[in-house]
Amino acid sequence: MIVPENKEKSQFTLDEFGLIKKYFAPLAKPNSAHVDISLGDDCSVFAFANDERLAVSVDTLVTGVHFPEQALPHQIATRAIAVSLSDLAAMGARPCGITIALTMPVIDNDWLEGFSRGLAQSLAHYAVPLVGGDTTCGPLCISVQVMGALPKDQALTRSGAKPGDLVFVSGTLGDGAAALACLSSAHRCLEKDYFEDKFYRPVARIALGQALLAVANAGIDISDGLLADAGHIANSSSVAIELREESLPLSLAAKSHTSAKTLQQWALTGGDDYELCFCVSPERQEQVQKISESLDVRLTKVGDVRSGEGVHCIDSSGQIIKIKTGGYQHFS
Amino acid sequence: MIVPENKEKSQFTLDEFGLIKKYFAPLAKPNSAHVDISLGDDCSVFAFANDERLAVSVDTLVTGVHFPEQALPHQIATRAIAVSLSDLAAMGARPCGITIALTMPVIDNDWLEGFSRGLAQSLAHYAVPLVGGDTTCGPLCISVQVMGALPKDQALTRSGAKPGDLVFVSGTLGDGAAALACLSSAHRCLEKDYFEDKFYRPVARIALGQALLAVANAGIDISDGLLADAGHIANSSSVAIELREESLPLSLAAKSHTSAKTLQQWALTGGDDYELCFCVSPERQEQVQKISESLDVRLTKVGDVRSGEGVHCIDSSGQIIKIKTGGYQHFS
Repeated sequence: MIVPENKEKSQFTLDEFGLIKKYFAPLAKPNSAHVDISLGDDCSVFAFANDERLAVSVDTLVTGVHFPEQALPHQIATRAIAVSLSDLAAMGARPCGITIALTMPVIDNDWLEGFSRGLAQSLAHYAVPLVGGDTTCGPLCISVQVMGALPKDQALTRSGAKPGDLVFVSGTLGDGAAALACLSSAHRCLEKDYFEDKFYRPVARIALGQALLAVANAGIDISDGLLADAGHIANSSSVAIELREESLPLSLAAKSHTSAKTLQQWALTGGDDYELCFCVSPERQEQVQKISESLDVRLTKVGDVRSGEGVHCIDSSGQIIKIKTGGYQHFS
Repeated sequence: MIVPENKEKSQFTLDEFGLIKKYFAPLAKPNSAHVDISLGDDCSVFAFANDERLAVSVDTLVTGVHFPEQALPHQIATRAIAVSLSDLAAMGARPCGITIALTMPVIDNDWLEGFSRGLAQSLAHYAVPLVGGDTTCGPLCISVQVMGALPKDQALTRSGAKPGDLVFVSGTLGDGAAALACLSSAHRCLEKDYFEDKFYRPVARIALGQALLAVANAGIDISDGLLADAGHIANSSSVAIELREESLPLSLAAKSHTSAKTLQQWALTGGDDYELCFCVSPERQEQVQKISESLDVRLTKVGDVRSGEGVHCIDSSGQIIKIKTGGYQHFS
């Protein structure tokens, strides 16, 4: 009863300890001053500076739900890491360690080689060490927990937006939904490379999040769609947010992939963009411009914070746009 | 393609935000001075005292692998929390926060009510707050990450055992394997209540681990079986460990459930006991006795640390016992 269901199908050539030693221990070399004890004991142990706090978040990716079943193992790894780190970015935290709970149906050395290769690329890109994890047997499912450091009295929360603030987003919106449509399509998609990159290697806006700590009043990452995520800021801050449809930053690839109407919908409710949405006082607009230049990241003003509640989007004629659906919700 | 496979079977009455609000937010009331920001933002944020470090561990439980498919939701919750906290105990850390990545096939309100009830009981028992998590749709799978605080220069690692040290274990051994046999059996098991408790509510030895920080040279929790886990200490400490078969502490329930020979095997290789195995210098034996009395926990000397490598077990006639199999490994 308590055995792997599909044990007979497995290619068991390594035990769990061998598997960790071969594929994961090489990624756990502490490359962070924070980590005192890494893989190989009951816990990993971190030290924080006196003026730092710990920020923690966890995200799970399930095969067939959060990535297509035919996704390659290195693609799954790079997506899992970026999606999880995006929450640290949204808080303004500096990544200092990652744990991975990996559940997989069989020990497939080719799969593990690809997965650990993708993992190594992402960990190097974000300069964050793997500090622990668990490997279990079951349907493919990856939980990544990220840990970051925050200055003692600073955090980019959802609750600090004030009426009069300007609302900005980084990058372009709608690419996540366009990527999903492109990768799911039976037809050939001209922008496949662009969208594959967007889907499997979204950029966690780590540097931007940290730069915004001293500038923004509130922030969030756009994982569920701009409307839904701006809604979280509005709720937490007890304000209203008014978005301007004509201001939404859109990529050329997304524009050429679909109609303007569909793309508007995707930009507002598609989710999976992993850009940051943040609110700043008008007198800090120049600082936002400077951050945009120094980090070479597109930052676009998309709306304003008002007194009131909820989020609405205004078209060029001043009409409120009716939106069909909310953002992505895992069970809807 | 990227939709829940069994969406049509679902009982979708709540969206993800509603689900978190109803079942999990009530458990997240900060009852720890550590937690600055809990559920409801992109990350949870912790503060640590200047003289503290963070200990982190993650464990995944998969249905049909780590618990029977007919396990009740409150049982799954209490087992998941105890198994995960056991790693903090093994490190001597004080629990200060838990995140849960819960993947489930459908939103079943009865199941969630039971799960959150078990969760609430365990969190209250160990006085640790839920600080974050993720809920996703897929085959039932629960990853629990535990975070604890450690004094700056102390940790109960696997690597400090010295030749001459005495080897102790807490509680009784073999109950985990006996519980599995009892719960898996088609026959009626007289000690079912005892074993159900052992399996679904193992005791994470949190207070013991903290007490041992100043006393023991090395420690580990027995999740893979005494031989395998003592082996981890032996490897990490570059020592040999000699265990005495006649000293292994066994419960009456386990003794009456199976033969002496089978129980010996279970005690050495069964795993799932979540007791602590630790090594202390002989001059500290009295302190161990005091800890046993003050915490009311059975602590039994089961062997000695020697120069050399590996673990072996000696029977009453001085012969080395041959052991059939190693401890539990997730993929063997």
